[in-house]
Amino acid sequence: MKKVVTLGEIMLRLSAPNYQKIVQTQSFDAVYGGGEANVAISLAKFGLDSSFVTKVPDNAVGTSAIQQLNRFGVKTDHVIRGGERLGIYFFEKGFSIRASKVYYDRSYSSFAMSKREEYDFDAIFAGADWFHISGITPALSEELFFLTKKALAAAKEKGITTSCDLNYRSALWSFADARKKMTDLIKDVDVCIGIEPLQLLDSNGQDIKEQLPETPDLDDYKKIMLVMQRQFGTKYIAMTKRTHLSVNRNRLQALLFDGHEIYQSSDVEVDIIDRVGTGDAFSAGMIYSLINQFEPQTAVEFALGCFALKHTIEGDANLVPISDVEKFMQRSFAIDR
Amino acid sequence: MKKVVTLGEIMLRLSAPNYQKIVQTQSFDAVYGGGEANVAISLAKFGLDSSFVTKVPDNAVGTSAIQQLNRFGVKTDHVIRGGERLGIYFFEKGFSIRASKVYYDRSYSSFAMSKREEYDFDAIFAGADWFHISGITPALSEELFFLTKKALAAAKEKGITTSCDLNYRSALWSFADARKKMTDLIKDVDVCIGIEPLQLLDSNGQDIKEQLPETPDLDDYKKIMLVMQRQFGTKYIAMTKRTHLSVNRNRLQALLFDGHEIYQSSDVEVDIIDRVGTGDAFSAGMIYSLINQFEPQTAVEFALGCFALKHTIEGDANLVPISDVEKFMQRSFAIDR
Amino acid sequence: MKKVVTLGEIMLRLSAPNYQKIVQTQSFDAVYGGGEANVAISLAKFGLDSSFVTKVPDNAVGTSAIQQLNRFGVKTDHVIRGGERLGIYFFEKGFSIRASKVYYDRSYSSFAMSKREEYDFDAIFAGADWFHISGITPALSEELFFLTKKALAAAKEKGITTSCDLNYRSALWSFADARKKMTDLIKDVDVCIGIEPLQLLDSNGQDIKEQLPETPDLDDYKKIMLVMQRQFGTKYIAMTKRTHLSVNRNRLQALLFDGHEIYQSSDVEVDIIDRVGTGDAFSAGMIYSLINQFEPQTAVEFALGCFALKHTIEGDANLVPISDVEKFMQRSFAIDR
Amino acid sequence: MKKVVTLGEIMLRLSAPNYQKIVQTQSFDAVYGGGEANVAISLAKFGLDSSFVTKVPDNAVGTSAIQQLNRFGVKTDHVIRGGERLGIYFFEKGFSIRASKVYYDRSYSSFAMSKREEYDFDAIFAGADWFHISGITPALSEELFFLTKKALAAAKEKGITTSCDLNYRSALWSFADARKKMTDLIKDVDVCIGIEPLQLLDSNGQDIKEQLPETPDLDDYKKIMLVMQRQFGTKYIAMTKRTHLSVNRNRLQALLFDGHEIYQSSDVEVDIIDRVGTGDAFSAGMIYSLINQFEPQTAVEFALGCFALKHTIEGDANLVPISDVEKFMQRSFAIDR
Amino acid sequence: MKKVVTLGEIMLRLSAPNYQKIVQTQSFDAVYGGGEANVAISLAKFGLDSSFVTKVPDNAVGTSAIQQLNRFGVKTDHVIRGGERLGIYFFEKGFSIRASKVYYDRSYSSFAMSKREEYDFDAIFAGADWFHISGITPALSEELFFLTKKALAAAKEKGITTSCDLNYRSALWSFADARKKMTDLIKDVDVCIGIEPLQLLDSNGQDIKEQLPETPDLDDYKKIMLVMQRQFGTKYIAMTKRTHLSVNRNRLQALLFDGHEIYQSSDVEVDIIDRVGTGDAFSAGMIYSLINQFEPQTAVEFALGCFALKHTIEGDANLVPISDVEKFMQRSFAIDR
Amino acid sequence: MKKVVTLGEIMLRLSAPNYQKIVQTQSFDAVYGGGEANVAISLAKFGLDSSFVTKVPDNAVGTSAIQQLNRFGVKTDHVIRGGERLGIYFFEKGFSIRASKVYYDRSYSSFAMSKREEYDFDAIFAGADWFHISGITPALSEELFFLTKKALAAAKEKGITTSCDLNYRSALWSFADARKKMTDLIKDVDVCIGIEPLQLLDSNGQDIKEQLPETPDLDDYKKIMLVMQRQFGTKYIAMTKRTHLSVNRNRLQALLFDGHEIYQSSDVEVDIIDRVGTGDAFSAGMIYSLINQFEPQTAVEFALGCFALKHTIEGDANLVPISDVEKFMQRSFAIDR
Repeated sequence: MKKVVTLGEIMLRLSAPNYQKIVQTQSFDAVYGGGEANVAISLAKFGLDSSFVTKVPDNAVGTSAIQQLNRFGVKTDHVIRGGERLGIYFFEKGFSIRASKVYYDRSYSSFAMSKREEYDFDAIFAGADWFHISGITPALSEELFFLTKKALAAAKEKGITTSCDLNYRSALWSFADARKKMTDLIKDVDVCIGIEPLQLLDSNGQDIKEQLPETPDLDDYKKIMLVMQRQFGTKYIAMTKRTHLSVNRNRLQALLFDGHEIYQSSDVEVDIIDRVGTGDAFSAGMIYSLINQFEPQTAVEFALGCFALKHTIEGDANLVPISDVEKFMQRSFAIDR
Repeated sequence: MKKVVTLGEIMLRLSAPNYQKIVQTQSFDAVYGGGEANVAISLAKFGLDSSFVTKVPDNAVGTSAIQQLNRFGVKTDHVIRGGERLGIYFFEKGFSIRASKVYYDRSYSSFAMSKREEYDFDAIFAGADWFHISGITPALSEELFFLTKKALAAAKEKGITTSCDLNYRSALWSFADARKKMTDLIKDVDVCIGIEPLQLLDSNGQDIKEQLPETPDLDDYKKIMLVMQRQFGTKYIAMTKRTHLSVNRNRLQALLFDGHEIYQSSDVEVDIIDRVGTGDAFSAGMIYSLINQFEPQTAVEFALGCFALKHTIEGDANLVPISDVEKFMQRSFAIDR
Repeated sequence: MKKVVTLGEIMLRLSAPNYQKIVQTQSFDAVYGGGEANVAISLAKFGLDSSFVTKVPDNAVGTSAIQQLNRFGVKTDHVIRGGERLGIYFFEKGFSIRASKVYYDRSYSSFAMSKREEYDFDAIFAGADWFHISGITPALSEELFFLTKKALAAAKEKGITTSCDLNYRSALWSFADARKKMTDLIKDVDVCIGIEPLQLLDSNGQDIKEQLPETPDLDDYKKIMLVMQRQFGTKYIAMTKRTHLSVNRNRLQALLFDGHEIYQSSDVEVDIIDRVGTGDAFSAGMIYSLINQFEPQTAVEFALGCFALKHTIEGDANLVPISDVEKFMQRSFAIDR
Repeated sequence: MKKVVTLGEIMLRLSAPNYQKIVQTQSFDAVYGGGEANVAISLAKFGLDSSFVTKVPDNAVGTSAIQQLNRFGVKTDHVIRGGERLGIYFFEKGFSIRASKVYYDRSYSSFAMSKREEYDFDAIFAGADWFHISGITPALSEELFFLTKKALAAAKEKGITTSCDLNYRSALWSFADARKKMTDLIKDVDVCIGIEPLQLLDSNGQDIKEQLPETPDLDDYKKIMLVMQRQFGTKYIAMTKRTHLSVNRNRLQALLFDGHEIYQSSDVEVDIIDRVGTGDAFSAGMIYSLINQFEPQTAVEFALGCFALKHTIEGDANLVPISDVEKFMQRSFAIDR
Repeated sequence: MKKVVTLGEIMLRLSAPNYQKIVQTQSFDAVYGGGEANVAISLAKFGLDSSFVTKVPDNAVGTSAIQQLNRFGVKTDHVIRGGERLGIYFFEKGFSIRASKVYYDRSYSSFAMSKREEYDFDAIFAGADWFHISGITPALSEELFFLTKKALAAAKEKGITTSCDLNYRSALWSFADARKKMTDLIKDVDVCIGIEPLQLLDSNGQDIKEQLPETPDLDDYKKIMLVMQRQFGTKYIAMTKRTHLSVNRNRLQALLFDGHEIYQSSDVEVDIIDRVGTGDAFSAGMIYSLINQFEPQTAVEFALGCFALKHTIEGDANLVPISDVEKFMQRSFAIDR
Repeated sequence: MKKVVTLGEIMLRLSAPNYQKIVQTQSFDAVYGGGEANVAISLAKFGLDSSFVTKVPDNAVGTSAIQQLNRFGVKTDHVIRGGERLGIYFFEKGFSIRASKVYYDRSYSSFAMSKREEYDFDAIFAGADWFHISGITPALSEELFFLTKKALAAAKEKGITTSCDLNYRSALWSFADARKKMTDLIKDVDVCIGIEPLQLLDSNGQDIKEQLPETPDLDDYKKIMLVMQRQFGTKYIAMTKRTHLSVNRNRLQALLFDGHEIYQSSDVEVDIIDRVGTGDAFSAGMIYSLINQFEPQTAVEFALGCFALKHTIEGDANLVPISDVEKFMQRSFAIDR
């Protein structure tokens, strides 16, 4: 069984239930989530040996976060306990024409204030085949940027495949800062996921994505992917495309560049139960596909399935087993008795 | 007031609430349902004298099943108490592109293990005008196949109109077995409902439904209905047509063959709250129409309304009164103050 | 800060949760609402000085109604305590093809049985810029018709702008009675909202709305608005247009006549969480626009936004802040982090 | 199987859940209850043929009340549909040192405004062995006082045993009025239940209960019971004794006078889940005991068990089967596996 | 109507429902509370003009805190909006022998990081009769100690009566630091509440409370109260006494020193629904008593009632009206219909 | 870290919430529990390396059972997937004087129908220090009796300490059968827990427990424990004593015989949230004490703490950490902030 390690922040998510606004609610639904934790859970549900690394406070809230990871099969042997608090985000789920809102209360968290020397990558990476991280972790602090850099370097040195989801959080850092630091980090990344908005600079210091026309076609995407391949040695580049028909109805598609060709999935319209973590579900689907050496077209369809199905799962993480993805890939909509 | 008797299994349905997967939930919504019980409830809500016959354990779970029937107006004077357990099914409601799942835990139930001699059809059928059963009951055991046979024969002998919903559960028996036994049973059925998948053999031992082209038109349907009429003496044949636009959006239509002509309802697209029991709601609508001698076109529109409205009702049974069906038949969508 | 006063009935609304029918539920969600109260809450959420006047019983139920108004920022200094009961309405929320139902239990309420002399309009209107009322209040009793008349007259005398939502409740009075009395009241109304169904007579005693063709265009609407302007001195006339695609999906649009021209908003399709109070949200949006002297086209778009967004808010009142309306006006559907 | 008929009002009870005050809650738990309805349900759970007579509105709320009766086995064939509304009471459950509160909103109910000629006692009493009513019904209106009188007279005439719970509601009538009218009614009552506060006058026009000393002993009770026997021909008199250790802990005991001797039950301390309807549970226990000709000491212990157990059942009605009462009578507190 | 101002922190409290441990729950009940906010709400429910001053973030969570204050009648005109976050505390309610736990996550809150110059005491104290604060606020930061000092000085200068609850939070500061700073602040306090643990030094620099014997009697208390009177000019000193019979059953009593005599209330045993905020309820009861010039013995009984009743109210704040306190003072435990 | 292995059945427990009777509820709270699984969870919460062995069906219900074990830290590497169903039990929680009820629906479960050869004890016991089982497993089938025997023998052979909880389920086997088979099994048990009702025969074929007087004192207990020591080589014998003050209030005590002396704990009265699994919590406390070589008196107090605290935890398993037990051992009842 292949072993995947992910590293990042896990937060307590507090959601107003039943599409209430926060100003209406007298209770919050509680789940624990974060980009890399979500990937870890999805991969564990797919049957991989999945391990998540972070730092959480040594109290009942921190324990609850670890418990949720364990519940869904993720190993947490290298989670550090300590610090002041678990980051929180409040989630007001939108509907129809009313957009969803996230209020972050993640400053000063145990993870955000952790130090790179707390992480022992020899132990963390023992036996690992794959390491995944996202663009959120280096955005949390200068220290965590260096932690990310150190983790990617350690992984590369040990011959572990690395992947990074380039998701950008404007609340955490400026676009310019993101672009500069992600360009630095990307060199140690084998598989690059989620390039829109792309925070990378080419060798001329130009934003690579600005080379895309307004409505890019496959060739346009391939062109900038070749730039990334050439400049950073990126082996695979995968991305999703989303059209907002409404807040709770989106059209989805996925692309995969395998270093040679660009593959495009079928598209699908989904009604949405929970939009959060869908990109992470896509990452997990892509990692699973590549670690199992699926054909590129199968890989992109499988990852689209993960991406799409997560929209129907409450909470941050994609809890579907492989069989659900396969059923989706057959577009099977009848009751499965 | 016309009296209808139905006979079959009633199960405890345990559903993960709020579209959760079963692996997420910490509670289950509980209702009690089963094909023939659902028909009985719907007919009671329409004001008929409706009676349901089954066997349930003599404990609080069995009592709860009976109570639900009573709550919605069904008479349960002939329900037998005893045996080991009430059958259960776990229901994971799907959404959008994620299919619903049913996990059956119905083996060894009081009903499945009951004996035909426990049922006194003279008492059960006293004063009855109509008897309804489904293709699920004969699938539960060899004994219950003979119970079904005995019940239909007794009804016919007493001049009671009989109807049967041909629904097929692959978890319970093979298609070949189903086809053979249903072909045997159908001879005592006046009104045949739900012929897809059709489990009947013609006089040449050929599957009747295989005579349908891939995309049958009305004439094609009429042709096989005439075969059924000729071979089994079936008086009315009714069926629904469903197109899955998505898991929670279907297009619906209904057909009725009255022995002479085939009538087609208007079609309607529905958003779905609960897909289970919609066929039973259709059966009830058709029984109500025929028992009240509606014109065929009215009957098929009324039954379509029952069928469609059930998709908006949580639980197994169609709890709408006649007035709701009438409002639907006028396509009245504004608030009814 | 502009001060708005509204006067009317506030009721306890008891809704069966989760789209259950009332015959299914074992609990009711409880909110307090009513046309003018809903307008007051929405305006308070927009930051205006908003005051609501009514009479509620001097018990915990009456206190709860007041508390909800206070919670969302509405002043209740002039609410009278006393009488027998708070009006109630039971709400069965429909879905897809099943219409919503309202069962009123509002007779004998403290407000419905209150006397005009209980209301001190000198105190109530102190410092007020705007007074809003609806066609429901005068329908509750002959006495309350005179109260409405007195209130409008007092407001006019004090130079306060007056608005009236012409909504018609067939459960409360006959169309003929409504038409006669509303025609009497309208003379003191500056801003007339919601003219369909129009309960007004022209100077020839003809129903003004009957002058509209079956599918009126903008010019047709303008024509009857000019009649109203001429006959009653109405300064602004605003209305909404709704098409029922299904019970929980409607297409919406709005019109505003500013005494010179008629302005039409863009249209929008909404999926619906709660249909009740959407007209009140529109009234509030229009009052806010006019009190802030928005350009007519901006006003009609802003009010459409209020109208549309309310469809996504559970409960009677529109709890969105200005920023939500602005986000809608940009058709921004992505998560707002 | 013995048949019991009860007649009275059934109301919608709306309770703030989880010991919240009404001013805190955003939902209400809903059950349907009333003195005589509660007796009917308890007797149906004990296996008697139990029938309840009332009038409820012809809407979903009235239907829900009937459904609850049917769910627990009560026959409702003689319930009249019509009128304006179902009576409501709001219930704020107290705890420890905070008393429970009931806010009645029962005026103008279908039952309270019903006419005696709507009730056909020949049909209602067909096959009945016992008729039960309470002191609440005659308090609702002058008309209903006459209805009670008529019902008791009809029952007596048909040789049906009659019982009456003398409970007194100060919100409905004055003590003097109650005393006068109950003294009139009591003459047709065989079994008198719940004599504290006693609303009866002796032949000298003196309040019978005033003849009790402040802390009466058994002989004191016997003395006034003999007065009642002599004056009104009462055959059995049963009553409960309650000491409030706190709002949710009471000490309970019961007495039964069988026309000769007075029997006293053991006493028991109970922690309380729901205090409402405990007297009705006692009435049902006593009716069941007497209809089955239990020995007086067994009867008073059985009825105490019903009385005590109801304190542990949420809702108005005592849902325990006979086996629960028997287990209590053995003071069996261990888990029953 | 007397006007009371309180100043302090309001936090979001997240409680695991139904006595679950935090590691069990999938949702949190949400209320907003804090010592001085709780006092303000209780006083508003008693009918006083009650105003609360704090700083909360300008987002939906901050708005929700304000809304809760408004809902229960507290004025929030002087609440400052801004800063990073609302303080949070997680609450795990204990039961029987399992103690309740509080996990604070209150660092870096908008209030804790606010500056004294943000508060305009001329505006805040306009028309005020009473100012209340607690020992928590000066513990939050050096800056807030000075804010407290400034507020008390301003109040004294304006002739406003001041009260302070000396509650001590060991999580926020050391006992030595608390003692030193509270001794400094107490000089401007007229009414001192909750002296155990007492954080005050006498003129010799000795801890005043150490002068109490292990099991102090009334005279012992009076002795140290006289020390406080002499040294700090304290006019009234009130305190509660609590014995833990178990986690959810306590025995309660109260004392009041009026500058001359010490008054002791009756004692009462309570079963507990929510232990949090009971001291604040006591403070509110005492402030209400003194502002209304109750006799000392009445005052201490009234305040005991507030203290005791709060144990039966879910949430931080005491939501009982005066009538509930009066009912308690009569030890009335029967249902109040 | 010490490693403990337990083996047995885990069931889905379906509880009617809020002390409802099963006939009242429309939902069930769902947890997964069973004697040995509960022990495993408690030990994992205490920080031991805890592993549970069973067989569960390969569907979402079986997965959910495993997930709950993982969530609370239990390893499930040796859980077998397959068979037909997960055993279920319905739980109706009693209160005050109403006893709790359990309705088993556990026949035909995957575990009950598993075969001894499916279990590989070399793998299961690798690295284990302790093996625990209960008297329920051998009661499920003849095959599982042999499985138990084989497991105990294998553990003994590998030098692993063995413990057995002698709990007896009358629903599963006769007392005579239990006594005979448990006497056979006990020979391989080092630590015997829960000897009442004792199902063991002495060397004369006499029931050992019958040698106890009706109200045994410590010496009486010691006497029979010496018999067990002599006959079976039992090293430690631990037991609990429970007095039912009511259904939800019990007095608890514990005894431990260490082969030399008998030690008695203090006693404690507890109010009960959930009575199920308290014996398992005691077993876990005793195993933890002995594996950590606590002094006997400390061991019996620690195990009493586990036993008592479990009564306050909802669900089958004791979720308290060590710190909660220590707090209890200090009888600390105040809020822990």
